[in-house]
Amino acid sequence: MTAGNSFGTLFRFTTWGESHGPAIGVVIDGCPPLIPLGEADIQPFLDKRRPGQSFYTTQRKEADQVTILSGVFEGKTTGAPVSLLIANTDTRPKDYEEIRDKFRPGHADMTYLAKYGIRDWRGGGRASARETACRVAAGAVARKILGDTIKVRGALVQMGPHKISRDAWDWNEVTRNSFFTPDAGAARVFTGYLEDIRKRGSSIGAVVEVAASGVPAGLGEPVYDRLDSDLARALMSINAVKGVEIGAGMGAAELSGEENADEMEIGDKGGLRFLSNNAGGILGGISTGQDIVARFAVKPTSSILIPRRSVDLAGKNIELSTKGRHDPCIGIRAVPVGEAMMACVLADHLLRFRVSKA
Amino acid sequence: MTAGNSFGTLFRFTTWGESHGPAIGVVIDGCPPLIPLGEADIQPFLDKRRPGQSFYTTQRKEADQVTILSGVFEGKTTGAPVSLLIANTDTRPKDYEEIRDKFRPGHADMTYLAKYGIRDWRGGGRASARETACRVAAGAVARKILGDTIKVRGALVQMGPHKISRDAWDWNEVTRNSFFTPDAGAARVFTGYLEDIRKRGSSIGAVVEVAASGVPAGLGEPVYDRLDSDLARALMSINAVKGVEIGAGMGAAELSGEENADEMEIGDKGGLRFLSNNAGGILGGISTGQDIVARFAVKPTSSILIPRRSVDLAGKNIELSTKGRHDPCIGIRAVPVGEAMMACVLADHLLRFRVSKA
Amino acid sequence: MTAGNSFGTLFRFTTWGESHGPAIGVVIDGCPPLIPLGEADIQPFLDKRRPGQSFYTTQRKEADQVTILSGVFEGKTTGAPVSLLIANTDTRPKDYEEIRDKFRPGHADMTYLAKYGIRDWRGGGRASARETACRVAAGAVARKILGDTIKVRGALVQMGPHKISRDAWDWNEVTRNSFFTPDAGAARVFTGYLEDIRKRGSSIGAVVEVAASGVPAGLGEPVYDRLDSDLARALMSINAVKGVEIGAGMGAAELSGEENADEMEIGDKGGLRFLSNNAGGILGGISTGQDIVARFAVKPTSSILIPRRSVDLAGKNIELSTKGRHDPCIGIRAVPVGEAMMACVLADHLLRFRVSKA
Amino acid sequence: MTAGNSFGTLFRFTTWGESHGPAIGVVIDGCPPLIPLGEADIQPFLDKRRPGQSFYTTQRKEADQVTILSGVFEGKTTGAPVSLLIANTDTRPKDYEEIRDKFRPGHADMTYLAKYGIRDWRGGGRASARETACRVAAGAVARKILGDTIKVRGALVQMGPHKISRDAWDWNEVTRNSFFTPDAGAARVFTGYLEDIRKRGSSIGAVVEVAASGVPAGLGEPVYDRLDSDLARALMSINAVKGVEIGAGMGAAELSGEENADEMEIGDKGGLRFLSNNAGGILGGISTGQDIVARFAVKPTSSILIPRRSVDLAGKNIELSTKGRHDPCIGIRAVPVGEAMMACVLADHLLRFRVSKA
Repeated sequence: MTAGNSFGTLFRFTTWGESHGPAIGVVIDGCPPLIPLGEADIQPFLDKRRPGQSFYTTQRKEADQVTILSGVFEGKTTGAPVSLLIANTDTRPKDYEEIRDKFRPGHADMTYLAKYGIRDWRGGGRASARETACRVAAGAVARKILGDTIKVRGALVQMGPHKISRDAWDWNEVTRNSFFTPDAGAARVFTGYLEDIRKRGSSIGAVVEVAASGVPAGLGEPVYDRLDSDLARALMSINAVKGVEIGAGMGAAELSGEENADEMEIGDKGGLRFLSNNAGGILGGISTGQDIVARFAVKPTSSILIPRRSVDLAGKNIELSTKGRHDPCIGIRAVPVGEAMMACVLADHLLRFRVSKA
Repeated sequence: MTAGNSFGTLFRFTTWGESHGPAIGVVIDGCPPLIPLGEADIQPFLDKRRPGQSFYTTQRKEADQVTILSGVFEGKTTGAPVSLLIANTDTRPKDYEEIRDKFRPGHADMTYLAKYGIRDWRGGGRASARETACRVAAGAVARKILGDTIKVRGALVQMGPHKISRDAWDWNEVTRNSFFTPDAGAARVFTGYLEDIRKRGSSIGAVVEVAASGVPAGLGEPVYDRLDSDLARALMSINAVKGVEIGAGMGAAELSGEENADEMEIGDKGGLRFLSNNAGGILGGISTGQDIVARFAVKPTSSILIPRRSVDLAGKNIELSTKGRHDPCIGIRAVPVGEAMMACVLADHLLRFRVSKA
Repeated sequence: MTAGNSFGTLFRFTTWGESHGPAIGVVIDGCPPLIPLGEADIQPFLDKRRPGQSFYTTQRKEADQVTILSGVFEGKTTGAPVSLLIANTDTRPKDYEEIRDKFRPGHADMTYLAKYGIRDWRGGGRASARETACRVAAGAVARKILGDTIKVRGALVQMGPHKISRDAWDWNEVTRNSFFTPDAGAARVFTGYLEDIRKRGSSIGAVVEVAASGVPAGLGEPVYDRLDSDLARALMSINAVKGVEIGAGMGAAELSGEENADEMEIGDKGGLRFLSNNAGGILGGISTGQDIVARFAVKPTSSILIPRRSVDLAGKNIELSTKGRHDPCIGIRAVPVGEAMMACVLADHLLRFRVSKA
Repeated sequence: MTAGNSFGTLFRFTTWGESHGPAIGVVIDGCPPLIPLGEADIQPFLDKRRPGQSFYTTQRKEADQVTILSGVFEGKTTGAPVSLLIANTDTRPKDYEEIRDKFRPGHADMTYLAKYGIRDWRGGGRASARETACRVAAGAVARKILGDTIKVRGALVQMGPHKISRDAWDWNEVTRNSFFTPDAGAARVFTGYLEDIRKRGSSIGAVVEVAASGVPAGLGEPVYDRLDSDLARALMSINAVKGVEIGAGMGAAELSGEENADEMEIGDKGGLRFLSNNAGGILGGISTGQDIVARFAVKPTSSILIPRRSVDLAGKNIELSTKGRHDPCIGIRAVPVGEAMMACVLADHLLRFRVSKA
């Protein structure tokens, strides 16, 4: 619990594996029994995150084929740990030999060495975004626990300075473009903008929004395992994320009390209805029944062609430019990862809810 | 571990108590032995957070006097749990009787009831910001573990639309004004601005920045207990917080790879030196040795005089305005709380660092 | 979670306080809401464990009066942490000054110093059996969760070489004698036997049996948080316990497969019925629906008048005899403590059962 | 953490896999960096536990070949999770089809169904002793953390009514016979005795002793994560274990205070020396520096040819006799498993010791 590679309490998963090792995987402990589960439930989500699908993602070719090794019997979960394995097939450790003694700016090279005294330099080892495939796999299992009522979706809402128009939001559009963005107009803007960035050997940041509908009121464990604090931890743990917002987010600082307070009334069919959602569906750390809405900022990929100043292990000043296969906007592929983390947090709290509710 | 009132792994504390119950308290398990500790080490931090000190905070009068009940022998910690107790002396449960059957907008009234099926309506019970006194007490103990080298400080950097000038930053100024703000000019602006808000019976949001200097490189446990994800969880768990940023934060979305990458060089005395700190002192979830910098947005106090629409338990539409003793800008008193949470996260990770480092 | 003063996962409590400090206490996090709870539900169990009630227990006079400081509102639990406080009223730290630089054989003096580098020598500090009052208080709350159907009872079944006759077992007898023993004949034997031990300034070991009836089948979390492994941990954590048995216990080593296998049949009213209970109500780490039966051996009190060889902090050989107020057979007062620990384990697993069962 | 398939706090492992699934495995999180580790460090311990090596163990043929999938780079651990995989090669699920609707007495068939509502009946699924291979693999890694100074060894000390002679104890003898017993004379007795049991289609219980030498004083976390309570949990979690003893164990009940107290003196070279070890190397839950000594009773294998009465899922009374490949005395193969669990507990507490000691 302390070494840091596990997430969740009742729905708890542990990931393992390095970017250029033989395989990566995840063990989920706490998946309730009797849930229908097969590889076909997981694969589509991995495919969504999978690299090599457009110009705008790394050209590394990984099938990301998942195998269920345990915890499922005759098509259903048994309550035993679910072990999932994904082979690494397109590893090229040699590509990284030239940086084995150098610290890439913006990368974790220097900090892993400071912490562990040893560093697996093959593609970032454990610090690689490849680890997020395991999160996506866990998220797919989490979705099975959430069932059909609770729906988790994500979208890219900003790339560099370009924000989408929220009026143009169309969830169906998300699957039609290469950016997972819900605004067709923005997708056109992103196309030219990112192409230019890629050609310059640069990269750019982004903002991703993830939302869950159908979440019942009552999820979250005050005062430290609040739904919002668990979401913040979950999303901030994704590679390259530097900020997390719930509902009005950082913008809440500029609101007055009367603007911020989401008023309530009795709806047409009875039942409480909120008139706005600045809370992002969470009050006092507990879900209100409204949509849960979170956003996170993803910094630009640190691996860029444009040379940067750095140092090497010998204590010399150097210049470094990273060739190889990298995403010009890693925020794009963070969309399915953010969805997965939100699904895992919600599945965990749905199970925790059972304890106090009975 | 699952019910949500504990924080931390090796430096772990559990808080208890309601706003208008007989007392509140915190039990710290995992405080290393042989650390000099007395009530005088804790009281100054409680005094800083204590209400009733200016026009701009609630007029509830609490001495917030802390008593150490265990874990200290002859002036030093013994390694046993440190139990701290703070009596509630100015409780007025009657003040809240009129809202016992009503849901205050922006408050946790509705969600606590949804979750637990019962609600301690006396001043918000457990959901009250009074709980944060226990965090501040725990934070004071955490500071003793951090020692003199690691320094944690916080400041108010924005109130409503008014941001401080970072060029005018003076840490000494923070203790001179009622807002914990480091910019004397901003303090003057805030004075008039907040006075107006208070008179209108409204409230306003704010942004708080907390920073730690002297933190060694190597703290943090990838990939889920990263230093940044633990900070995000810690800060988001504070009442009314809606957004958390590390380093460049949400602004990282607008940066290019070459702008964002903090370049490195060998310093004058040898040793690695960073040329910027967009990372906020954290790369790959591990501290770099630079200052750890985090910001969080605090929403405006939900208890306002201006009437808001809501519902009651009988299912009727109502209008609600909250009289009583409340902070017009709760973000101000969140400064010592944010510092405390950062201190606790750092103390925890400093202890965790010992495990892998030996 | 790591510093060792907490127990349980969903029903989780943390104890604090030293034998001769101002107070001891326990914080229970994870008590479900809406359970009727008052001090009167807890006090009787503390009274049972309380010292000074017969010749056969220490003469220290403690009222052991419990106060509920949080987590209860209008007579019911709210789901918030339940904080319980017991003042220490008959402390005599001076009694221990003469051993502050000496290691008492059989005591934790030497090991606490080795571990922490500091030792609260006042009556054993944290290592004192006084800590078990907090377990009993937590156990009383656990019983409220177990409800009326699940009943946890304990009894002394052996003192030194004298075992009770199981044929003479009468649960009503347990409350009639000073030994919590269910065999009236054995109680008479113990009386004379223990009086002799006490007069000689010696002490004696004992075996305690705890049993729970009404436990539904299905409790326990294989393969590491099995019901039996959690019980083993719980009972072995009680001061002075050196052995724990479930069902046939150590005697299982002498059984053949056909003797050990508890046969099953369909009962008169339908439903599965076991023909024996060598399993102690647990198979594969999960409850079977039969009575849960555990036993534990309590070593003799180490504080005896008869002198023993030891060493002091100056590195000198010494002889030590412990005067003062001590139980000649600490196993007696371990009965309510064993019950409490079993109740806590069962309450925890009852809550955990809800998660997988829903 | 709550679903039960993980063990340990700082040295923490999670096992997965069913007896007749494609593979079993273990993920170790918390293995410190820079420890030399290869498959050759693990395989010998698996070979020791491996079935099919003598008449006295199941004839299932498993190579139990371990593969390291992560966490090791250039021959050393990196601090990242160590994932170990063992393929199942000799699975015969069909062998179990006839019991898919029946409850085998002494087995977990009935309780797994009660808990999970579904049961993987192929060879006991998760409840199979096959899971213990993962413990042995984790134990081998734990030994690398313990280093050369701390040595963990186990031995069979009783089979049915036959106890070894402790005067004849010879650790070298343990590797020479098929029983892991240290008394050559006892080995001869066991040979004939077990052959007879096997021929009768019966099985028999046993007692295993595990001991660790070279353990420094100071390991253990009072009052709930004591070294003895963690050992009790660890050993009781092994399949078929019904009793656990530390030092004098259940026999402590018959000792007087003066007999039980392990006297101390200053040794010839200075330094504290104990004159006996009734404590089993643990006082107040903390290691004393003496050998840690624990024993556990293993019940007889429940899978026997001799028919037993039971019931089936249709609610009918039946008779059951288990053919197939089973150990007549499963206690034998429990020896390497007991060693592994002790090694894991000690590695965990050695790391925990670093936290308070620094």
